[in-house]
Parts: sequence; structure tokens; C-alpha cells
Amino acid sequence: MSAALELAQSLIRCPSVTPADAGALDVLQKALEARGFDCKRKVFDGDGSDAIDNLYARLGTKGRNFCFAGHTDVVPAGDTNAWTVDPFGGEVIDGRLFGRGAVDMKTGIACFVGGVDAFLAAHPDFDESISFLITGDEEADAINGTVKLVEWCDQEGEKFDCCLVGEPTNPKYLGEMMKVGRRGSVTGWLTVFGAQGHVAYPHLADNPVPRMIRTLDALNSRELDQGTDHFQPSNLEITTVDAGNAATNVVPAKISAAFNIRFNDQHTGADLKKWIEETCTEHAGAHELKVEISGEAFLSNPGKLANLIADASEKVTGKRPEMSTTGGTSDARFIQKYTEVAEFGLVGQSMHKVDEHAMVDDIENLVTIYAEVLAGFFD
Amino acid sequence: MSAALELAQSLIRCPSVTPADAGALDVLQKALEARGFDCKRKVFDGDGSDAIDNLYARLGTKGRNFCFAGHTDVVPAGDTNAWTVDPFGGEVIDGRLFGRGAVDMKTGIACFVGGVDAFLAAHPDFDESISFLITGDEEADAINGTVKLVEWCDQEGEKFDCCLVGEPTNPKYLGEMMKVGRRGSVTGWLTVFGAQGHVAYPHLADNPVPRMIRTLDALNSRELDQGTDHFQPSNLEITTVDAGNAATNVVPAKISAAFNIRFNDQHTGADLKKWIEETCTEHAGAHELKVEISGEAFLSNPGKLANLIADASEKVTGKRPEMSTTGGTSDARFIQKYTEVAEFGLVGQSMHKVDEHAMVDDIENLVTIYAEVLAGFFD
Repeated sequence: MSAALELAQSLIRCPSVTPADAGALDVLQKALEARGFDCKRKVFDGDGSDAIDNLYARLGTKGRNFCFAGHTDVVPAGDTNAWTVDPFGGEVIDGRLFGRGAVDMKTGIACFVGGVDAFLAAHPDFDESISFLITGDEEADAINGTVKLVEWCDQEGEKFDCCLVGEPTNPKYLGEMMKVGRRGSVTGWLTVFGAQGHVAYPHLADNPVPRMIRTLDALNSRELDQGTDHFQPSNLEITTVDAGNAATNVVPAKISAAFNIRFNDQHTGADLKKWIEETCTEHAGAHELKVEISGEAFLSNPGKLANLIADASEKVTGKRPEMSTTGGTSDARFIQKYTEVAEFGLVGQSMHKVDEHAMVDDIENLVTIYAEVLAGFFD
Repeated sequence: MSAALELAQSLIRCPSVTPADAGALDVLQKALEARGFDCKRKVFDGDGSDAIDNLYARLGTKGRNFCFAGHTDVVPAGDTNAWTVDPFGGEVIDGRLFGRGAVDMKTGIACFVGGVDAFLAAHPDFDESISFLITGDEEADAINGTVKLVEWCDQEGEKFDCCLVGEPTNPKYLGEMMKVGRRGSVTGWLTVFGAQGHVAYPHLADNPVPRMIRTLDALNSRELDQGTDHFQPSNLEITTVDAGNAATNVVPAKISAAFNIRFNDQHTGADLKKWIEETCTEHAGAHELKVEISGEAFLSNPGKLANLIADASEKVTGKRPEMSTTGGTSDARFIQKYTEVAEFGLVGQSMHKVDEHAMVDDIENLVTIYAEVLAGFFD
């Protein structure tokens, strides 16, 4: 059994469901210190979220600094009875490593370590720097994690020459896809107000529903853009509409709705917020609106790191991964402000699901890919 | 204190919240039998609603038959702590009779009786017929009440030459308004189906909300008609829209809505139902639709009865009431199939509310108006 696989098992056996750490960072720190890394722990708290432990580790003090980034926290196991294994057992069965975090992304972190081992074994004279930027707050609020850790690094003068995030980016097979950017996300909550009354006397009531419908129709029917070379078209989804009025002879006093926009780099969160506000002002009448920008769109393609990953993947798996910007947000959005970032990890198919698992073959190949990326970077 | 006021108090003191009778019909029957009426009680049940007691009473066996119609059931008192009096106390304070049913419409029934007394006192040789058609099922389902009682009368050979319904038709003062027809009512419940999914992967989901919005917009934006001489324009109100989805990153699997149309005699319930079905088929995609026709529009203006009421009101109050078709449905819709019907009663302002009350002066005037109507009819 490889060191990466063993480390992945040890990490999975810590039930570190956000915000719990459950010893996961200690396990990783011990492994990194054994390899000569200088480890610093940073607990961040406040801003309405739980206090979270974070780890910054660096091997070497000079030269270029290649950073691996990831998170040790996991989403809840859900219905543990539905699992065929212990979600926090880290069992290997028929060539698969099972457990919450096996894919997203404790095993990715273990592969970083395995990759460093392989790289150092082949480059005994290495005298530049490799660092780990690890948080316990990616799956939940993402408030006391990476965003504050990279800021702290910046204040401490820690610079990165590039950063590889180990999220499970491959939809179905290793080598299929990396992420070189992500769409941004804006969420809106709208409540439209009217005056309650009997349906038989509509002139005495003021139904807020038609104004809500016009507003949502205006928001929903705009073509935000047609997509770009690297991004799919920006898209708005209305996620709920609720009046909660059971009386069919009564006009409701108010109605609420929520919607989310995933947008590409043709927009900024601020521009979209302004457009949402203007649209509501135009159509909604009396209303309350809250708009939250949870991430800006970014694109770092086609950089040196992305090409190194593609080359390494092609060499190890025979597949050259697509440079994609699809899917949800990740902590890469915080790191891209400081350095070139790209994401490449395991196959994500079972992430967040029952019986989450990674193929052992994929784990060994990913170790080799990460070692190749390091070799290419420091070449 | 007049006999009408005393009878109204006795009726209010029976807490006959639908479907309870609480002795109300016994009180009325005793009063009518004391005046020589032949009383028949009919309990109707089935059709998914509670069993309900009803009363048909007739004075005389020949000649023309003038019918008074009404209901002894009342809506619930609601928050009794908010009342300043006992809702079922029937107290008279400062010239006002308080209690649930004081306006809608126990006092109206008591005024029928007072009107009969006054008419008979002035016409000792009266040898035609006066009847009472009284139900305990108007405020709730209206299934085991008037609709079945008039049908039973028809089967028994009981004919009516006209029917005065004693609902509180006057908005603010006695003599302001009678009802000579009512709009019909159609209610629709629509659920639109899609496929749940993550907002970041819209191509894997199918959001039902935009289809619901298009459907509701199509339903809501049609001008059904511009009204007629006797009816206000038909009107659709969307009463609720609900997806109940709290997750702003998830596309909901379905969304439901309800809407109600109050329509005039330019439409039938069946035509509107067909239009609703076609509109949903055109815009909603996968959906479930239930449409319920709870009443057809009708108009009996300008008949003999309506003019008699107007003349009597003008004589007693100095005000000639508007012949209106506004407001909610009433049991008149069932009676108009058999004879000319018009509705005229107390001032409705406090009906269904806390501290429901009628002015004692209005009660005495209404007694006189009903007596005048009888006198005019049998003249």
C-alpha cells in the first residue's frame, strides 16, 4: 500500500465534517513535518461563522514556491444506513477507497504528499519551495478558511508562483477535465408586497403576484450572454416562489422568491446586482430585495500551470484534459487574486453521495501526475 | 324591545358555527309555529360534507307563495379575546345588537318574522302563502343546504312566486344596495413539474418555474370582458404560488399555484374551465390541473321583486338601493333556477369580523321594509 493511500485512509478516519476538524489537520501536519515541512496553524473566527483551524506548510525557504491547496473538511455522511461501508472507515475494497472525503478531497491532499515524495526522490538536490495551503472551511461557509489564509500569507510575505487546487475535477475518468476558472455566483431574495383582500372585491385588494411574475419574467428572459471560448453562457435560475396562502378566496399580502445567477467573465457581481435592483424597481412595485455576491467569475487559462497539468495527465493517462470553467464555485476563487491557479484532482462522480469512493489506480496515477507537474514546473 | 330583536338575540345565543345547529332551527321553528306556519325539517348528508339540518316552513296552502330565504349557520368567532363582548351573547349596547350572526344573517331571519307579523297585522284577511327556506349550510360547503332543499321543494310540488334572500347586502347604510344577481366563481389548482438539479448544471435540471410563470402570466393577462350594465368585469386573481424550496443552489422539482375567477354572465364555468385547461396545455409543460366551478353567474334584474324592494326601501329609508351584482356568492345562486330572486338585508360592514353588530334602528327599519315588500307583492 502506497504512502498516499495510507495517508488518505488516516484522513478519512477523522470525521471532519465542517466545522469539525476531528484531528485531520494534525494527521496531515505530522506527515508534512516528517518530510521537512515547516507548519503553521492559523485559527480564524468571526464574521458570523464558526472558528476554523487552517494549516500553511512550506518545504524550503527560497526559490520559486509551488503551492498545493485543498481542504480537509467534508460534507456530512447523510443517511449512514444507506452506506454499504462505514463513511469514516477508509476501507479499501476491490480496488476502491471508500469514505466521506475519498474523492472530495482528502485523497487529493494525500496525493499531493505522494507527489512530493516521488518528486523529491527523483530530485534529491531540490532547493526551491513547495507549500501546502489547507483549510477546514471549504464545504460550508468558506468564511474562516482559504480567503483569510491567503490574505495572511500575503501579509507575511509568502508568495506563490502558482497554485494547484486538488478538487475532484474529472467528471468520469482521470484525465478528462481540469478547471482553469470558475463562474461567479449571485443570489437574490425578493419579496413583493401588496394588500390582502377578498377575491370578490379586487378593487379593495392589491395582488402582489402579477408584479412578482412580471419581475421574475423580466429577470428570467434576459439572455445574459452567449458564452465565451472558455465559459458556458451565464444563466439565471429561479429557485423558489412562495406566497403560502391556502385560502383560494383571499388575495395574499406578499409573495417571496429566490434566484441564483452563475455568470462568466462577461459580468461582475456588482453589475448584475445593479441590473437586478433596476429590474425589481421597474416591475415589482413595493418590494424588499437582498442580493448576495458569493463569488466573481475568474479565468486563468491558458497559463503555464494549466499546460503542465495537461502534459502530465497526457503522459500518465494518455488523456489530455479539457480546460473547463463549468460547475460550482471552489476556493480557487480566493487564490486566483494572488497567483495563477488551476484545479485538477480525482473523478468526482461519487462526491457528496452515499458510498463516496476513489479508484486506487486513479490515486496512484494522480500521485504520478502531481510529481510530473512539480518536475515540469521546477525544470 | 321588538319581537324581531328578541328573536335575533335568541338565535345569536345558539353557537351555530357550521356544521353545528346548536338549537338555532328549533328556536326559529317555535317562533314560526306560534304564527301558524307548517314546519318541515330535512336533514341532508353525503357528497363529502357534514350532515346538515334544514327547515322549510309555510303559512297558508294556496295562492301565490312569497318565499324568504336565509341561513342560521355562522362563521367561527375567531379570536374571542379580541371581541369586546361575548360573540354568542346577543347583547344590545348603545343601540347596537352584537354577536356572530348579528349581521350575517340571523337578524335578517328575525326581520323576516317581524315583517310577517307587521304584514299580517295590517292584512288580517290574508289567504295566500308565505314560506321560509332556511339552511344551516351556507357559510361552509353549501352542499347539504339550500341546493338540496330547493330541489326537494320542487319534487314536493312546492312552487315559489319569488324569493327574497336576507343576506347583508348594504355596504355602509340601509337602503344603499340590493343584489339582483351574482358573479360565478371558478377555482384552479395547478402544479407544474420539472426535474430537480444543481443551479450550476442547468442542462441536467428542468426548472418548472419559468413555465409556471408563463402560464400564470397568460391566465392573468387576458381581459375576460369589460363588464356589462349590471356586472363589473370578470376578474382573475392568483391567490398563491409555492415551490417551498429553501436551497438557493437547487432547481426545484415542482411548483404549485392556485387562482380564482369571479365571472359575470358573459361566461359560463365550463367555458372558463376549457380556457384554463387549454392555457395550461399551451404553456405549462408537464402539469396537473384541477378546476372547480363553485357557482355560475346569474342575473334576475329588473324583476318585480327587485322593484318592490327598491320602492319599500325608498319609502322607509328615503334611499333607493342600487341593483348590484358585486361581491361573493350566496345561496341565491341555487334558488334563481326556480324563481325570481333578489337579496336585501342589513349593513354588512362588520360581517365575519370581530364585534359583528347591527344597528337596532336598521333592524326595525328592515322589519318595516320586509312588511312593505309583502304588502306590495300581495297587493
